[in-house]
Amino acid sequence: MTDFKNPPDVIVGRLPLYLRALQQLAAQNCQVTSSQELAEHLGLSAAQIRKDLSQFGEFGKQGTGYPVQALSHRLKAILHVDRVWDIAVIGAGDVGHAIARYPGLANRGFRVAMIFDNDPAKVGGQIGPYTIQDSAQMIAIIRQAGIRVAMIAVPEAHAQAVADQLVEAGVRAILNYAPISLNVPPGVQVQYIDPVVPLQKMAYYLE
Amino acid sequence: MTDFKNPPDVIVGRLPLYLRALQQLAAQNCQVTSSQELAEHLGLSAAQIRKDLSQFGEFGKQGTGYPVQALSHRLKAILHVDRVWDIAVIGAGDVGHAIARYPGLANRGFRVAMIFDNDPAKVGGQIGPYTIQDSAQMIAIIRQAGIRVAMIAVPEAHAQAVADQLVEAGVRAILNYAPISLNVPPGVQVQYIDPVVPLQKMAYYLE
Repeated sequence: MTDFKNPPDVIVGRLPLYLRALQQLAAQNCQVTSSQELAEHLGLSAAQIRKDLSQFGEFGKQGTGYPVQALSHRLKAILHVDRVWDIAVIGAGDVGHAIARYPGLANRGFRVAMIFDNDPAKVGGQIGPYTIQDSAQMIAIIRQAGIRVAMIAVPEAHAQAVADQLVEAGVRAILNYAPISLNVPPGVQVQYIDPVVPLQKMAYYLE
Repeated sequence: MTDFKNPPDVIVGRLPLYLRALQQLAAQNCQVTSSQELAEHLGLSAAQIRKDLSQFGEFGKQGTGYPVQALSHRLKAILHVDRVWDIAVIGAGDVGHAIARYPGLANRGFRVAMIFDNDPAKVGGQIGPYTIQDSAQMIAIIRQAGIRVAMIAVPEAHAQAVADQLVEAGVRAILNYAPISLNVPPGVQVQYIDPVVPLQKMAYYLE
């Protein structure tokens, strides 16, 4: 069996897509899939998928197809989502509400654990099962809970200050919904959700 | 001046990031920037940025830096976002609300034009300036308005059916918030907003 050590970042970035497709197939009681089927699901080439998954050794054997459950478990373990990561959400506006109630996190390795806002009118209010907490207490509460993952859903002007506090609190992975780039120290990861980026990419190909 | 024809898809995908960084710099009254400064903003390498932007000819000259406004205008034109694209939003739940009120679209080539839902309890209600319309009328209304861009913010189980209707209505670019892959005919683009994908990618590097 081939070892799967230090794969290129670009392959790591595709693993969640493979996992999502496999979990979707599993939900349809599909037992075995092919690179061709995954390619159709994902809009990638079958050759690319075979090449990426060949790094998993025995799962890549030609002609037998991929066992959906086993490959799914393997990818979960590789991505460290065979456990559940608690997430702190900062910002209880429209985006924070949507995140806190987003059903798509379940069974995918994450759950929202707490939500913060700096607006006295919001603090103490409820979003589903969560009581909105005062962001003035954020550093202490997140550090105490040992949370490593956070989502920033505050206005652009406050995003960097919030990121700085999260880093101080021990957060090491930030998903930023504010449409600005954040500066963080080495060892802290940031990814972005900015719907305009994929929209602009598609606009290039329109007309 | 070098022509900028048919750049690889992966470069097209980075142009919105450059444009966002340039617009952020312009908002700070910055006139000239460097590949180094952009690299720090974006977490890419300066060499990568120089290579990508060298495709724009005169803007890439060594030593002079990039003129923020001029390069920003050039990128907008290339990406076809020097105009404003109307967007139809399907689904008036939490995500639909967040999209309809998202301030980050302004000045970036898009505006929400209409929002639909199939829930009689929601149809006729208001989200900011938008009256929620009945999705039963969606195909006719979108076709009539000539809208080419849509966002799907409906539950997973309905996303494919909605996509089929959007294609029938003439939509050619879909941003899908439902965590499933969509099948669309050639000539129709789909991009995905699934926060779990970047979260799982970061989880790989945690610990």
